[in-house]
Amino acid sequence: MRDWTWRYEGYDPRHERLREALCTLGNGRFATRGAAPEAARGPAHYPGTYAAGCYDRLVSSVAGREVENEDLVNLPNWLPLRFRAAGGDWFTPDARVPLAYEQVLDLRRGRLTRRMRLCDGAGRVIAVEQRRIVHMRDPHLAALSTRLTPEGWSGELEVESALDGDVTNAGVERYRDLDGRHLTGHATGAVGPATVWLDCRTASSGVRVAMAARVRVRPEPPLTSSPEPGPLAVVHRLALAVTDGRPVTVEKTVALHTSRDPAIGDPLDAALDRVAGAADFSGLLASHTTAWAHLWRRAELDVANRAGKVLRLHLFHVLQTLSPHTAGLDVGVPARGLHGEAYRGHVFWDELFVLPYLDLHLPEVSRALLGYRCRRLGAACRAAAEAGHKGAMYPWQSGSDGREETQLLHLNPRSGRWLPDHSRLQQHVGSAVAYNIWRYCEASGDTGFLYGDGAETLLQIARFWADSALWDPARERYRILGVMGPDEYHDAYPGADRPGIDDNAYTNVTAAWVLARALDLCRALPRHRRDELFERVALDPAEPELWEDVSRRLRVPFHQGVISQFDGYADLPALDWDGYRRRYGDIRRLDRILEAEGDSVNRYQASKQADVLMLGYLFPPDELAALFGRLGYPLDDARWRTTVDHYLARTSHGSTLSGLVHGWVLARARRAGAWRHVHEALTGDVADLQGGTTEEGIHLGAMAGTLDLVQRCLTGLEPRSDALRLDPAPLPQLSDFTLTVRYRDHWDVTLRLGSGRLGVGVSESDGSPLTVRLGGRTLTIAPGTARTLDLP
Amino acid sequence: MRDWTWRYEGYDPRHERLREALCTLGNGRFATRGAAPEAARGPAHYPGTYAAGCYDRLVSSVAGREVENEDLVNLPNWLPLRFRAAGGDWFTPDARVPLAYEQVLDLRRGRLTRRMRLCDGAGRVIAVEQRRIVHMRDPHLAALSTRLTPEGWSGELEVESALDGDVTNAGVERYRDLDGRHLTGHATGAVGPATVWLDCRTASSGVRVAMAARVRVRPEPPLTSSPEPGPLAVVHRLALAVTDGRPVTVEKTVALHTSRDPAIGDPLDAALDRVAGAADFSGLLASHTTAWAHLWRRAELDVANRAGKVLRLHLFHVLQTLSPHTAGLDVGVPARGLHGEAYRGHVFWDELFVLPYLDLHLPEVSRALLGYRCRRLGAACRAAAEAGHKGAMYPWQSGSDGREETQLLHLNPRSGRWLPDHSRLQQHVGSAVAYNIWRYCEASGDTGFLYGDGAETLLQIARFWADSALWDPARERYRILGVMGPDEYHDAYPGADRPGIDDNAYTNVTAAWVLARALDLCRALPRHRRDELFERVALDPAEPELWEDVSRRLRVPFHQGVISQFDGYADLPALDWDGYRRRYGDIRRLDRILEAEGDSVNRYQASKQADVLMLGYLFPPDELAALFGRLGYPLDDARWRTTVDHYLARTSHGSTLSGLVHGWVLARARRAGAWRHVHEALTGDVADLQGGTTEEGIHLGAMAGTLDLVQRCLTGLEPRSDALRLDPAPLPQLSDFTLTVRYRDHWDVTLRLGSGRLGVGVSESDGSPLTVRLGGRTLTIAPGTARTLDLP
Repeated sequence: MRDWTWRYEGYDPRHERLREALCTLGNGRFATRGAAPEAARGPAHYPGTYAAGCYDRLVSSVAGREVENEDLVNLPNWLPLRFRAAGGDWFTPDARVPLAYEQVLDLRRGRLTRRMRLCDGAGRVIAVEQRRIVHMRDPHLAALSTRLTPEGWSGELEVESALDGDVTNAGVERYRDLDGRHLTGHATGAVGPATVWLDCRTASSGVRVAMAARVRVRPEPPLTSSPEPGPLAVVHRLALAVTDGRPVTVEKTVALHTSRDPAIGDPLDAALDRVAGAADFSGLLASHTTAWAHLWRRAELDVANRAGKVLRLHLFHVLQTLSPHTAGLDVGVPARGLHGEAYRGHVFWDELFVLPYLDLHLPEVSRALLGYRCRRLGAACRAAAEAGHKGAMYPWQSGSDGREETQLLHLNPRSGRWLPDHSRLQQHVGSAVAYNIWRYCEASGDTGFLYGDGAETLLQIARFWADSALWDPARERYRILGVMGPDEYHDAYPGADRPGIDDNAYTNVTAAWVLARALDLCRALPRHRRDELFERVALDPAEPELWEDVSRRLRVPFHQGVISQFDGYADLPALDWDGYRRRYGDIRRLDRILEAEGDSVNRYQASKQADVLMLGYLFPPDELAALFGRLGYPLDDARWRTTVDHYLARTSHGSTLSGLVHGWVLARARRAGAWRHVHEALTGDVADLQGGTTEEGIHLGAMAGTLDLVQRCLTGLEPRSDALRLDPAPLPQLSDFTLTVRYRDHWDVTLRLGSGRLGVGVSESDGSPLTVRLGGRTLTIAPGTARTLDLP
Repeated sequence: MRDWTWRYEGYDPRHERLREALCTLGNGRFATRGAAPEAARGPAHYPGTYAAGCYDRLVSSVAGREVENEDLVNLPNWLPLRFRAAGGDWFTPDARVPLAYEQVLDLRRGRLTRRMRLCDGAGRVIAVEQRRIVHMRDPHLAALSTRLTPEGWSGELEVESALDGDVTNAGVERYRDLDGRHLTGHATGAVGPATVWLDCRTASSGVRVAMAARVRVRPEPPLTSSPEPGPLAVVHRLALAVTDGRPVTVEKTVALHTSRDPAIGDPLDAALDRVAGAADFSGLLASHTTAWAHLWRRAELDVANRAGKVLRLHLFHVLQTLSPHTAGLDVGVPARGLHGEAYRGHVFWDELFVLPYLDLHLPEVSRALLGYRCRRLGAACRAAAEAGHKGAMYPWQSGSDGREETQLLHLNPRSGRWLPDHSRLQQHVGSAVAYNIWRYCEASGDTGFLYGDGAETLLQIARFWADSALWDPARERYRILGVMGPDEYHDAYPGADRPGIDDNAYTNVTAAWVLARALDLCRALPRHRRDELFERVALDPAEPELWEDVSRRLRVPFHQGVISQFDGYADLPALDWDGYRRRYGDIRRLDRILEAEGDSVNRYQASKQADVLMLGYLFPPDELAALFGRLGYPLDDARWRTTVDHYLARTSHGSTLSGLVHGWVLARARRAGAWRHVHEALTGDVADLQGGTTEEGIHLGAMAGTLDLVQRCLTGLEPRSDALRLDPAPLPQLSDFTLTVRYRDHWDVTLRLGSGRLGVGVSESDGSPLTVRLGGRTLTIAPGTARTLDLP
């Protein structure tokens, strides 16, 4: 039996923000953090609702400089609902330790339940059972059902429900000096006795946000029901007659529309219409549960034991952040999901860890997320042109309009200093976009996209790399200078007056791969389409020749048989890892430690996270060897093994992605030590290994990466155009699992690993046989049949 | 040589509105009517710019009743640009007959050029050459280049450019009693000396609309440049020194963004950024021309002579209303394009005449237009539920949110009476949606869509028909009661107290077809997907059994060997057609004539437009015969021929679609008389055959239908999953043409008809051979080869 619940017993204010993050509910369109709605705290502590892709820009002053920042907007909070005996004080777990407290996230049903027994100052006790959903069928709805049972008393119960537009982005402590107020132009009102509404817009981007809330009380209607529209919030006060031991239920149903929604007129009209037509809680729960059942079926991943439970939580967060509803929106993959304010909701490269998973379950969502990048190709081309280059330079951090949103300063909380931030030099984000386009098309066979928007985006990214590469006649190699790789510890050479490092191996090898795929694509494109595309982007016929040349002659530095992270890496001294571990314990953020000491991590052979080793994450061994071979650098198993060993000993894992990548690389090489890293990746968020970062938002890339680790790393699955390739490399601790994937026209391919055997099944409703390639063998599996294979 | 121009010589105020309509420019996102920007008339005469899918709702009072109407919004006019000698009066063709006037629409380049010699009151002459584009590469841009050459004088020239937000929807005379003012909240301003902006929003739907205009003067900068922001418009005044015989050029470049645009923050910021980064006119013209060249290549249709020229104009309008830019928008197929105010920009069933054409050229646009319907499935299901039915009832007229927008009253201009309008009973629009889903998927092979949103929409439409059908035990047939067919002359039985007619043959036969396709689809769906879908829509397992039964036993009435248009049609008296033709001449709007006489067209065997004969338009002869066979009604060639003859003699062709359908049906049957109808369809708009309706907006469905007539009717082309079927039936007047289509994975299939032979060519870059079925033969055509076949 799978355990589908994520449960907390007891109420501990120190843990509530972490629990909130992990118990966030969403549906791809908006998400609501798992806050205690009846709490008496201010809104800054209980940010409620985030809409996907709804950004707003504010100007603040920090460290004497004016900084502009764009945030994923914290929308009005729909959760507030509190209650008290008439004349008493509010029942809240924050005021008095609850007599009992239990919080259960039901992953299967996408439902959060809280059961409490609360006591007020006069000793009155109330039992509370509260269920909450953010609706997965109708993505504009959310609902909160609160059953209240007085214990040992009868009388009048006051209930106060609200829609609260007086909210700020204040969930990340180090951002609190920045202006966090994004909502303006509030209007509130009521329709009849049971429905209230709040209308507002984002301050600078002008997105209208309208919310309507309907409250119903069972079994008897309320004694009184008084909507009280206010300037920033609308409060709905109800008086209920309650009797000892007899439960009353308050159902709050909320509809949310923004001016970015398709198929509506005015957002407020749409919200009012929608809430008026919404079913009651049990009806909503039924359709919501069905929708979740369908999602789980599309993304079946059955892994035994504790790991399986954590993977289900990760899958839950991935599915509710990037659900089928995402496909209709203009949104990207936010690094911290939809519920965390860290990184301001920006889009980085995390999709590199997310899309390969989604490609095999929800290809329409992958395609939409790629479409988000394609729609911002113009912005990326403008950025490249401003940097003096052809092609497209995708931003390291971005939001609504695709421009670079990376901060120019960041705070080292350890030293208190605001420091220059060069991370916008992580131009490798473009290769991540290109990689995902290619992988998606391999998995889906979607030539409409590949030859359409996909082609233009991929070509412009390739073009940027070819144009960025400088020919070095002395070395007879192309070089890419002044960039940052994924490892953010190295943003400049020690003492250098310009930021960036040269010939980052990750950047150059992925760029070579992108160029080679662009050339493949040019050969594959229908002739008219190729002509059209070349004319459209004004491609010089000589450019593909340059791409060919650059793709074969980009420089990759080596030292002592090891791929160097960048040019000059070999010259850096070693760090006294043991010494720092002894002195500081947790040295994940070694950069901050050294900066606070007046030193710089740029000086050492020390990595925050996987950089060179990312290559082993992106490319299966044979593809990686071929890629190095094309570049004229032989890469045999021994050399790769030496490289892995080198970086294993020199990485602090300051990113949640690092454990994942190390685990992946070691697992693919069937090496010991993989599980330790995989385990770290699995527990990164649930145990908040980065110390406080999870409560600022879960790490979506790392979560999705653990799913893909099971799906692609442990199975060796590669969905190629000619066959589904498999090459299982199970870990002893993860050797028994079942998953289903959708691969091209095959909607239901089941993979089952266990007892040293691999089963592959094809649904009887799939139209054609499945071709599988495994260890040199090619198998054809007919629809409605399965094959079980012994692993080598 | 093809003639790519549409040219008017001389200026005639009586014809200007028709010329405006036919010379509209657009790019899928917005369109600008061909108005004379330098005219001194009020804005009501020169509505400027329509944005696709931007609707707004107003409440007016008419005939003592409050009516609500939703219009496609006439956005601020960006065209105004006028000029005069300092102290003189404005040069305008409206004030004084121009010395010369020529207006040329260059279809190939999507460019409108006007050359004029104008004279002011003081006898000063100025030569004007004005070129205008609505940009096809960057759909947010438009530009107007005006070259002014004083003849015989020198001095100061005043130029006044404006962005005019003081606009109304007033282009249709009979709507002028209705409130037409959709813009509010205007703000205006300037950035530097060369750029002005206007920001506003639609009154009830609250869509922000921002426009920025940059003006540059060549060869010398202006003497003075004064932006003058006003309350509803911003005017930009320039003073230029001009010399006799020396041209000066004023380039006005405009950017338009609305709050519905993806990939932007604030629309005004986006518009200002975009216009600041825009190239000069020659650069814009070059990229625009390239984009048009690509469109023409995708939709190659080379037909000789005058017919070919008209078809190019039709294709131009189709491509600029539904361009690749449409694919990124939430818009439907507006009956009158984007430039006409008639029908208030509403979406009817015209897509039935448009998508089968687009499917074979711009399948991504077809898919997006189907997505528009899928996104409004919820509204269609609510409408069905309110009518007491399961499934989806798509609205006859709709706009932003998918609800029914059909007017409840319409005006008979002949009698001056406002009459009840029952046309919302045209429930057959749902079958048009289902038909297009199926045909699109046949042409494209897009199972992702077919099994995804397409399946749910198609099933819900089928479900509505099954639930609407009533079992008549006496007849042992299902019946559909109280509807209207496409023929709007019959909206009730004479003297009946309820609207609608029963067993409309078109409705019932298409409903049976939809039910049969829904059953096909249920069999084809991958098992999990089918289960998911059935659960999602709570489909009772017994329902498909009912669909099967209804699809075989829907009633189709017959009389005297003829398919009856509806039950009881046979009992209606004949009309004295010759008498009415004698008395009224043009009897296209026979309904208005009879109503004005106190009679009703409901009383007669008289049709406004094809209804039964539409079946011959939708279904090739074998498919139609099979469909009737499935229903238990043998339909042989003789019976169909008798049916065609019957309705040929009883149709007034009050719709532009009617000639098209009659021509199609006769051409497919290789019968004489086809050309007369085809010719009527070809000239419907260019000669404004309906008398004044074209200036209220071109007829997009009829235009696209004429293209499809060449593409599918004259070739007998049917893109099926197993083969491209062909069965040419050229008309003597249309027997020589070339076209290219995109069919599934074949991006470039060329069909060439001429001299009694058919050539089929497959591009060498197409990956796989093409299977063609022609007259019982199956041919395989390898990539890079062509076959020429003698026609039977």
